[in-house]
Amino acid sequence: MEAFDTNVVPVRWEGNWKSGVLHMLDQRLLPGEETWYSMTTAEEVAKGIKDMVIRGAPAIGIAAAYGVAFGVRAAGASFKSGTAEAEALFELLKNTRPTAVNLFWALNRMQALLVETDAMDHNARVDRLFEEAKAIMDEDRANNLAMGKFGADLMPDGARILTHCNTGGLATGGYGTALGVIRATNAAGKLKHVWVDETRPYLQGARLTAWECMKDDLPSTLITDNMAGYFMQQGQVDAVIVGTDRVAANGDVANKIGTYSLAVLCKHHGIPFYVAAPISTIDLDTPTGAEIEIEQRSAREVTHIKDVGIAPEGVNVAHPAFDVTPAELVTGIVTEAGVASAPYGASLAGLTYSPQ
Amino acid sequence: MEAFDTNVVPVRWEGNWKSGVLHMLDQRLLPGEETWYSMTTAEEVAKGIKDMVIRGAPAIGIAAAYGVAFGVRAAGASFKSGTAEAEALFELLKNTRPTAVNLFWALNRMQALLVETDAMDHNARVDRLFEEAKAIMDEDRANNLAMGKFGADLMPDGARILTHCNTGGLATGGYGTALGVIRATNAAGKLKHVWVDETRPYLQGARLTAWECMKDDLPSTLITDNMAGYFMQQGQVDAVIVGTDRVAANGDVANKIGTYSLAVLCKHHGIPFYVAAPISTIDLDTPTGAEIEIEQRSAREVTHIKDVGIAPEGVNVAHPAFDVTPAELVTGIVTEAGVASAPYGASLAGLTYSPQ
Repeated sequence: MEAFDTNVVPVRWEGNWKSGVLHMLDQRLLPGEETWYSMTTAEEVAKGIKDMVIRGAPAIGIAAAYGVAFGVRAAGASFKSGTAEAEALFELLKNTRPTAVNLFWALNRMQALLVETDAMDHNARVDRLFEEAKAIMDEDRANNLAMGKFGADLMPDGARILTHCNTGGLATGGYGTALGVIRATNAAGKLKHVWVDETRPYLQGARLTAWECMKDDLPSTLITDNMAGYFMQQGQVDAVIVGTDRVAANGDVANKIGTYSLAVLCKHHGIPFYVAAPISTIDLDTPTGAEIEIEQRSAREVTHIKDVGIAPEGVNVAHPAFDVTPAELVTGIVTEAGVASAPYGASLAGLTYSPQ
Repeated sequence: MEAFDTNVVPVRWEGNWKSGVLHMLDQRLLPGEETWYSMTTAEEVAKGIKDMVIRGAPAIGIAAAYGVAFGVRAAGASFKSGTAEAEALFELLKNTRPTAVNLFWALNRMQALLVETDAMDHNARVDRLFEEAKAIMDEDRANNLAMGKFGADLMPDGARILTHCNTGGLATGGYGTALGVIRATNAAGKLKHVWVDETRPYLQGARLTAWECMKDDLPSTLITDNMAGYFMQQGQVDAVIVGTDRVAANGDVANKIGTYSLAVLCKHHGIPFYVAAPISTIDLDTPTGAEIEIEQRSAREVTHIKDVGIAPEGVNVAHPAFDVTPAELVTGIVTEAGVASAPYGASLAGLTYSPQ
């Protein structure tokens, strides 16, 4: 795999199969404190996922894979797949964040490898399991790097790019999706500036993306979401790129609340609006965005910042966590296999998954 | 003056010229606490303005007028205009919020009355001064009521109206400008719902407008600014109305940051975008919005909520406090003398000031 030009990763693996340690960054404390925990057991990893030390679907999957390897290491040579002991290990890791799709995907992959390696020497098997966990991480990073290059090719020289939410190294194996494209644009010498939407209500932009930009010395400015239109009007935004939770077969894009407004503002100002989407997020079984259910989240995330109340007690609050941007507002969908563009029906279906 | 159907006013006058008291609501503590101070001296009023117990240009002007009357009452029969004693009183009240235009306007009006009444019996003069302060308040309210009626006439039955920032009773003599139009729409039986933008970074919507809506039982929902587009897309917004700090001669509108994005979203969705503008805010000497300087405010208002940091230390921040919405995105400008519409050059110049 090629050089990896970012200081931001959610976990770092150090050592060998016998005594190796998984370092995990506590994202709950960012940006105020940068605290790393050294984990050596499945229990520690499971607690880290459950307590949201780590968040972001790909990052969670990677951590869980390491958790499996730790569990087998601790269990010793008697450990076999299909036993109550093995089941308990997977249950421990599964019962952390029950809706994270990548978590189950990574655990299934480790489970298959366990079955395959039942007859292997214990030490060699543990070594192989740690290698697999690392492969899951490396593949995610490689996909992000590939996506980054395709995306960077779309950006003009001196690009001033606006992004929303956190789609960076912290949420993935490293590098990131939309923020990965911004990193790749910088690596290509074409990045002039990043506009970071703070991303109310949960402030992923202010807390995490702004921190990632500072860590990697990306020239950036934090703004409130409602300033994006102003800077577009001033001619200071050349492109917008965001991540996505799900892309429908027709190219409609579900993403963090506020994305749709950005797409409308882009159209009004003639600014390209890109979406960075790992192929795993493209759901050809969902015909259009109308079939995507919008999660309604807690009022408290709107009315409180940490423990500070900012609205009257008992106020009526709406909190749709996502919105759907119709395909006609999307200039291009950047994947690790290339860039899809309108008409999206054919373009998305034509992309095939090719692990790096 | 007609009945005044709101529970929200920034000050209440109680009693007669001899022992009367000005009650002032502490807006700094809203929405958490509703604390009223009883003021009886010019010094108390000056401190209240300076410490931002009261904010909003019209509200500040009204309070200062009461401050003059308190000062003369305390000084006794020897008080004459033009003396060092009189000058000290005006300096005290002027040196509170040096950029508030309405403050100087109200003080000049009181100053003129002082000169006029130098020969008057002291008791009658003090009575007259308190009457003048009350007249300033009543005129502001009457203008808001007139503006409210003109605005309400524009709204459909069952109107779901979205607003931004705080333009309500708290910022004025009472009732409000854009929020006054919403109150009038409710009084006319046509209001179905108010969408309250929280209005980052200073959260005037979450802290003040949401509170006013609850006080007056206006059906309302607090949203983050980046949700406005989502609810428009869902067909749940029939009109947007906002206030303004200044309207240029061509109809360009300067208002709280985020207003421009709302106007673009309205255009995309075919939703009318209205501005409530007291005639005093229409500046025929400013040809277009390009001549309006945008105030840049402190980074801390973006990076901190009260004392809680939400972004990395040392992060680069932009904080334009206002934006300019071009006239072509404005459906109508609602004033106390009627509604201006495109072409605004002629329409705005044709409105004449007619105090109620």
